[in-house]
Amino acid sequence: MLNRPIILGIVGDSAAGKTTLTKGIAQVLGEDDVTIICTDDYHKYDRAQRADLGITALHPDCNHLDIMEQHLALLRSGQPILKPVYSHKTGMFEAPVYVKPNKFVIVEGLLGYSTRPVRQCYDVKVYLAPPEPLRAEWKVKRDTQKRGYTEAQVRAEMLKREPDSEQYIRPQRSWADMIVSFCPPKLVEAINGHLDARLVLRPTIPHPELTQVVASDVTTPIKSAIRLGLDRDMGKPVDVLEIDGHTTREQVRELEKFICNEIPDLLNVCAADDSTMELGKVAGTTGETIQSYPLALTQLLIVYHMLKAITIK
Amino acid sequence: MLNRPIILGIVGDSAAGKTTLTKGIAQVLGEDDVTIICTDDYHKYDRAQRADLGITALHPDCNHLDIMEQHLALLRSGQPILKPVYSHKTGMFEAPVYVKPNKFVIVEGLLGYSTRPVRQCYDVKVYLAPPEPLRAEWKVKRDTQKRGYTEAQVRAEMLKREPDSEQYIRPQRSWADMIVSFCPPKLVEAINGHLDARLVLRPTIPHPELTQVVASDVTTPIKSAIRLGLDRDMGKPVDVLEIDGHTTREQVRELEKFICNEIPDLLNVCAADDSTMELGKVAGTTGETIQSYPLALTQLLIVYHMLKAITIK
Repeated sequence: MLNRPIILGIVGDSAAGKTTLTKGIAQVLGEDDVTIICTDDYHKYDRAQRADLGITALHPDCNHLDIMEQHLALLRSGQPILKPVYSHKTGMFEAPVYVKPNKFVIVEGLLGYSTRPVRQCYDVKVYLAPPEPLRAEWKVKRDTQKRGYTEAQVRAEMLKREPDSEQYIRPQRSWADMIVSFCPPKLVEAINGHLDARLVLRPTIPHPELTQVVASDVTTPIKSAIRLGLDRDMGKPVDVLEIDGHTTREQVRELEKFICNEIPDLLNVCAADDSTMELGKVAGTTGETIQSYPLALTQLLIVYHMLKAITIK
Repeated sequence: MLNRPIILGIVGDSAAGKTTLTKGIAQVLGEDDVTIICTDDYHKYDRAQRADLGITALHPDCNHLDIMEQHLALLRSGQPILKPVYSHKTGMFEAPVYVKPNKFVIVEGLLGYSTRPVRQCYDVKVYLAPPEPLRAEWKVKRDTQKRGYTEAQVRAEMLKREPDSEQYIRPQRSWADMIVSFCPPKLVEAINGHLDARLVLRPTIPHPELTQVVASDVTTPIKSAIRLGLDRDMGKPVDVLEIDGHTTREQVRELEKFICNEIPDLLNVCAADDSTMELGKVAGTTGETIQSYPLALTQLLIVYHMLKAITIK
């Protein structure tokens, strides 16, 4: 239908879960149809240069934001790019790679919503905002296991980066259509190993009419495991969809069917009886298998918006 | 006046003198105003990969021609690019560099005129065509002194490349506005260490009215050291300006003044009494100083076209 790819943004701080969510969504869409771009490749300085200059990778001046804008605009118009390649393993740049956009492009990174021209390139903008202690835990785990740092080094780096996180990363939350937070369950008795999901839905893209199927806290005497409620985020009105880790298969299936019903292509995704489990299953960066109903519904809702974007005139 | 850079192409086979001519023209224009791009950076494969694949760097399939087109179009519209970097020393790719176009951009390389979209990016197109034995001599000298090859290796490589030179490089001559050939003098008695220049001027850009100042062979009983004559190049009508290596300072000054007179900015270039010597002086790739009147006039004529291009509506 469209002559250009559909572009999804996944923005969030270091170790917020961007790569894992990206991988899960690519699985649902079909990996052959998806091009994944990581904007860390647009760093201006390698690791040694950043240390010399005393600049963190989170600072806009440490990134070729104008080239990032240019490349995303080219991809959006269906053109190929010669993408720079930054290696997190060596902290250095490698030979650039030729990238042709597939039907879907997922752009994940730290500063993906930091300028107006780059924001205009996305069809769907997601921001990942886990609670800071959980993010710290994830970052320590990944950087010690995959990037050769010690825990002390990772914690020192996070402290050093905090002012830039505060000034440049977290404000990007305000540009997102959907803010995704996976959080440890608040009720101790509810802990079953699965995180809760809290999805902030801004009225900037056409979310499904969830009021038709999801109970609101106000009208249900017993607290449901999936709830929709009005709230404010950064001072502005939003819907908040909460999916508890202890939600049941039946509750999830009902919502899943409602979302899929609106998009013909999605009916295939949720047709299989075990679709919910497949949807919510993804390999984490540090090798573990992550599998949960809240993750399944989060992925489904993002995929819903990507497929819906194809039909928007 | 213009809101975009003026773009000059210098295309020719390996060791045809592209870098030396580029450097000389940049000196005349003022190096701070010039951005130099070498299209070898758009190779698709590094040296080891080319050897594995049995492909030469002259083959279009060995180059990201679509990205080269895209980057030249971006530069032409005044936008920056993140340019790949191929190292002739190591035969590998390095970290890309951020390039903002200056007032003038000189694009030198092997396949600069090989596609229609890329040809449309230039204001002035020069093709370098020294006689093959002279090019072989230059290539042996450069590749043994600067790129670590033996003479036998260079000659074997030239033989291997000849089919691609024939099929992909030399046909680009037909797209040039000016074809520059430096050749050893034909007359043995005329040899003074300076090469003759033979400039083919295609009526595709507005050359100066040289008939007003340069003798034609037909009308001059004694053969002048600077001559203009009609000829055919690749079957099509052209003017040919020949400047012998033994031409005198007075003959050159007269032509130089005539060319400069048309372009206010050029008057500065030729105002100094020793301007001719400065114009024709440039450091060659292998470290020697090259200095000649034919080179001076060639550089001046190319600069004339670049400055004239600014005023063309």
